[in-house]
Amino acid sequence: MLRVIQIGLGPLGRKTVQFAAERPALRVVAAVDPSPDIAGRQLSDLCGAGGAIAVASSLPAALSAAAEPPQVAILTTYSDLDRVEAQLCELADAGLPVVSTCEELSYPWITHPDHAARIDARFRERGLACLGTGVNPGFLMDYLPAVLTGLCRSVRHVTVRRVQDASTRRVPFQVKIGACLSIEEFAARVAEGTLRHVGLPESTHFLAAALGLRLERVEEELRPVLADLPVTTGFRPIDPGTACGVEQIARGYAEGREVVRLEFRATVGEAESFDQVEIDGEPPLLSTIAGGVNGDIATCAVVLNALAVVATAPPGLHTMLDLPIPTAGRTV
Amino acid sequence: MLRVIQIGLGPLGRKTVQFAAERPALRVVAAVDPSPDIAGRQLSDLCGAGGAIAVASSLPAALSAAAEPPQVAILTTYSDLDRVEAQLCELADAGLPVVSTCEELSYPWITHPDHAARIDARFRERGLACLGTGVNPGFLMDYLPAVLTGLCRSVRHVTVRRVQDASTRRVPFQVKIGACLSIEEFAARVAEGTLRHVGLPESTHFLAAALGLRLERVEEELRPVLADLPVTTGFRPIDPGTACGVEQIARGYAEGREVVRLEFRATVGEAESFDQVEIDGEPPLLSTIAGGVNGDIATCAVVLNALAVVATAPPGLHTMLDLPIPTAGRTV
Repeated sequence: MLRVIQIGLGPLGRKTVQFAAERPALRVVAAVDPSPDIAGRQLSDLCGAGGAIAVASSLPAALSAAAEPPQVAILTTYSDLDRVEAQLCELADAGLPVVSTCEELSYPWITHPDHAARIDARFRERGLACLGTGVNPGFLMDYLPAVLTGLCRSVRHVTVRRVQDASTRRVPFQVKIGACLSIEEFAARVAEGTLRHVGLPESTHFLAAALGLRLERVEEELRPVLADLPVTTGFRPIDPGTACGVEQIARGYAEGREVVRLEFRATVGEAESFDQVEIDGEPPLLSTIAGGVNGDIATCAVVLNALAVVATAPPGLHTMLDLPIPTAGRTV
Repeated sequence: MLRVIQIGLGPLGRKTVQFAAERPALRVVAAVDPSPDIAGRQLSDLCGAGGAIAVASSLPAALSAAAEPPQVAILTTYSDLDRVEAQLCELADAGLPVVSTCEELSYPWITHPDHAARIDARFRERGLACLGTGVNPGFLMDYLPAVLTGLCRSVRHVTVRRVQDASTRRVPFQVKIGACLSIEEFAARVAEGTLRHVGLPESTHFLAAALGLRLERVEEELRPVLADLPVTTGFRPIDPGTACGVEQIARGYAEGREVVRLEFRATVGEAESFDQVEIDGEPPLLSTIAGGVNGDIATCAVVLNALAVVATAPPGLHTMLDLPIPTAGRTV
């Protein structure tokens, strides 16, 4: 039995609490979210599970209210390390190892070396482990391809494709990928930074590290996918010439050539959803998950599956490269 | 740079030396094989790579002949722990961590608990790590499906299918799977135990452990696949009614029902080769490697990729469940 504190009760945090409640090996004993419309409410009310535990507005308040002390923390708050670093350090100081969905934490060593070094130092000081993970970044476009390279005598290039039909996804997801926007509106959302999927550079560096390479540079490209016919499968109709979604590509270069290429594409009305890894190596490999992986479910699952691994890991900031595999039934 | 000693210079050991020679991070500094037709020969002669290192007939002879002391051992000798245990312990006593392709070592905790306990104790005493791995068992039918369960909130059942067209494989492989045998000849080979793929029970227990389950029982079934039309794609023609290969199925039961099913099928003239994992869970997953994975290349690759992980692992007997992923570029 592992006692968990949940930090962040947005959609992801709520689903995590719900899934955790299904597992006899886990018990959520405390929760934190300072949002005025969340703090003070009970988990059972917010998440449909988790019982009569009131969400506290701060970590100290949650710890003093908890009937039993938590042993590990789940942090699902922000995508960026600028805002997450202080939260992580507060958890370390409270003696809690952490699994977080912060995208920039999934492989921060190249993109945020100073944040990474400070977080690593703090967790080492406290003798605790910290891991950033999730489905993407954290698994499908970095960890799984890295696992598959284990079958190879040599690898020249890796392509990863995550292609999703957003028609059946939540409306906020369809909005997030720019569905129904004009070219100008799409460009404005890109400029304000609210349309980008966070994590492709981290995944690119992760995969390069798995190949024993240090990248010279990473290029990232983001463009709208425009409907060429009317699309009626989403939350509202999309006219030809307006955006039905986004395509985002990251390329990693080493030794003067492209060695890693990540293609993320999500549109309303996409013909086929799939997750694919193509390794140009010896042997060559083409591995496909038909229909793709539901991101909302899998992110929460990966986090819960990683808890036992992180609770018993050596101190410091880890990535998925450093730890044993977080399988669906792993317990402490 | 990791200095390696290769124990066993059969086909697998020779290929391992050949692949190791391609890697700047590895150097084979010694080799052992007592076979009269191998001992005394040079690696470059036997493997087409590896230089002017003579194969010694014993470990002490190899260690005293080595210009530099090895840091890690690769053991590719036998499939059964009865014969491998003493070899492993001799390596531990010589101060060497080991990666072995011994099939029964891939997950010995249930099928050979006494061997496993003794090997674990010896490597712990010496402060060294030991790992059994390979492509199958070791990766495709146990490790990779276990990795994929990490995406799941819950798993009810896992099916793994390894289906191979043996037409283009080495003649010894075609012979090994019973191609061209009559039903009676096939039954005789099964009875003498020379036709069975070793490792399915180990893979079944591995996967169950990944799911947090302890199996009540494992059933294994082995039957010939009979040609229904003449097959002419193998090393010699196969008449209808004779065997073109083998189908071997293992089923693992827990909580009164089947939870893991492994299907291994290799025939001359198989319509399609593939490696597939099907998870009945939330989310459901169907992951397929098109064309399948070449077993000879991948086994050697997995072993070499695991060296750096094992050289730095905590002491004791490990399985692939316990260690970080052995990626294609991992170095110490």
